[in-house]
Amino acid sequence: MKVNLQEACEFLKSNDDFLILMHANPDGDTLGCGFALCGALQRMGKRAKAVCAEEIPHKFDYLFAAAETQEFEPKTIVCVDVADTKLLGDMRELGNSAELCLDHHETNTGYAKRVLVEPDYAAACELIYKVINELGVPFDKELANCIYTGAATDTGCFKFSNTTPQTHLIAAEMMRFGADFAMINYVNFDLKTQGRIRLEQEVLKNIKYFEGGRVALVTVTRALLDSIVDIDSDDIGALANIPRQIEGVDVGICVKEKKPGVFKASMRTSALVNAAEICQKLGGGGHARAAGCSFEGVTVDEAVDKTVEAACEAVRKALGR
Amino acid sequence: MKVNLQEACEFLKSNDDFLILMHANPDGDTLGCGFALCGALQRMGKRAKAVCAEEIPHKFDYLFAAAETQEFEPKTIVCVDVADTKLLGDMRELGNSAELCLDHHETNTGYAKRVLVEPDYAAACELIYKVINELGVPFDKELANCIYTGAATDTGCFKFSNTTPQTHLIAAEMMRFGADFAMINYVNFDLKTQGRIRLEQEVLKNIKYFEGGRVALVTVTRALLDSIVDIDSDDIGALANIPRQIEGVDVGICVKEKKPGVFKASMRTSALVNAAEICQKLGGGGHARAAGCSFEGVTVDEAVDKTVEAACEAVRKALGR
Repeated sequence: MKVNLQEACEFLKSNDDFLILMHANPDGDTLGCGFALCGALQRMGKRAKAVCAEEIPHKFDYLFAAAETQEFEPKTIVCVDVADTKLLGDMRELGNSAELCLDHHETNTGYAKRVLVEPDYAAACELIYKVINELGVPFDKELANCIYTGAATDTGCFKFSNTTPQTHLIAAEMMRFGADFAMINYVNFDLKTQGRIRLEQEVLKNIKYFEGGRVALVTVTRALLDSIVDIDSDDIGALANIPRQIEGVDVGICVKEKKPGVFKASMRTSALVNAAEICQKLGGGGHARAAGCSFEGVTVDEAVDKTVEAACEAVRKALGR
Repeated sequence: MKVNLQEACEFLKSNDDFLILMHANPDGDTLGCGFALCGALQRMGKRAKAVCAEEIPHKFDYLFAAAETQEFEPKTIVCVDVADTKLLGDMRELGNSAELCLDHHETNTGYAKRVLVEPDYAAACELIYKVINELGVPFDKELANCIYTGAATDTGCFKFSNTTPQTHLIAAEMMRFGADFAMINYVNFDLKTQGRIRLEQEVLKNIKYFEGGRVALVTVTRALLDSIVDIDSDDIGALANIPRQIEGVDVGICVKEKKPGVFKASMRTSALVNAAEICQKLGGGGHARAAGCSFEGVTVDEAVDKTVEAACEAVRKALGR
């Protein structure tokens, strides 16, 4: 059942003993939502805990200050920034009992009893900001750090096209409440491990261009990943954005060996061609500017050739060649 | 003479035939200021042109739409985002006749007849935004693109500690007036030339660590720069930020060979040590977190050794070793 902001908040006010589920492979938005909502409910005198099926990266340690650790038997399950129960990892079963889901993904499957989705919001934290205001909980530095983190991380620090004036207005307000924005942005956008630096260097060394520089490719093999200590999934994920950042490149491709014979191709495109359409032809999918597809039982050269050829064909077609 | 916002705007209203000077080595803030103010004055029916002693990088081509090209004999010189006439390059003499200076640098030398400096503003464009409002000129997409550009580029896309709530509020308003923020952020923050990619790869390859990883160094020789086509001063300048982005690094150093035997060291530090203090000992200066110094008549190894030793000494002292 779809609910509006007031109805969602009435539900939160009239219940207690909350278990807040954040999605697996946790990012700044789901964590910001979870800890901010948890902290706000606790400040109302309720019991609440925010949990995630996977380990929370240490760079987010500062978020924990927004809520205290409480031991109790949960009664009310709320999901934040979770479009589908399958994104809950090992906690998927709990998601099937969700009483409320607060999210911003248009693709939300509506699995919860009460669903509030705001697809025009760049970050789910923007919705949690409104929930906290509606609940009447005053903001403080710790809650502000959570909301700012979601707003900044889901927009590439206000850089991407999903950013709205509302995102900036909320960021400004969180800064007024003391959000430690310079620290948050440093750990989320600038800080790199020595391993990440080595990985980027190795990947940049082998960048390949096609179609007169309009298509650029990087390849990441297991052998390369295994040769570098001190890298995590964030480091590897970020590689997908590198080729498209190069001047003149309309299609940036990153082909990554997930395990022997299994490859994932990530594609980023300019407005010239549609990444989702190209990847759909290869059995994948995604968004217009960012999409992906997978290959099994092939060599790295076969995975690369198929992806590059599909991209080059789309570019030639778009240029009328 | 210091003037306030109203006095500065009275001066602009009661004069005409403006020559607006932007600083040499032009960045997004001085250019955004120049074209926005020029366009606003033209929209008031006045004649105005914005000029810079050096070529404007092509990535800023979109700013030109804010103002039209007018031919006339200038009478009234206004400097924007120019702290010192020596920053005007070959137009330095013109700066000595400046009737008005609109700036945000605390270090402004007060060279103009009327000076309005707002050192707490992250970008000079924030001041120009207020000037345009005070002049009563309605914003449109083209003016909004200029103001947004200054606000975004002077704050690393709202990332750095100089960002204020006001910066975000102005960005939000410029987005409402149609600023093409995703394009602006793409060309200013993501887009890299193939040369830049190669340069980064070469530099990352030779990164060196000292003091258990707390000091990191990259070195850029003329031989390296000469071996790569398609790089500009922006590309080279950006290298100074790389070492300090590495986890655990308190001092990031970039030593660059400006010409044979002449070296420039750029230093970025964490809160552990003061970059300006270290560089002052080496005859340079700057800010607490970003500073620099120069060496002449030395070898690259000598320049590197002096800088690294000063940095390591400061780190050891800070740690009480």
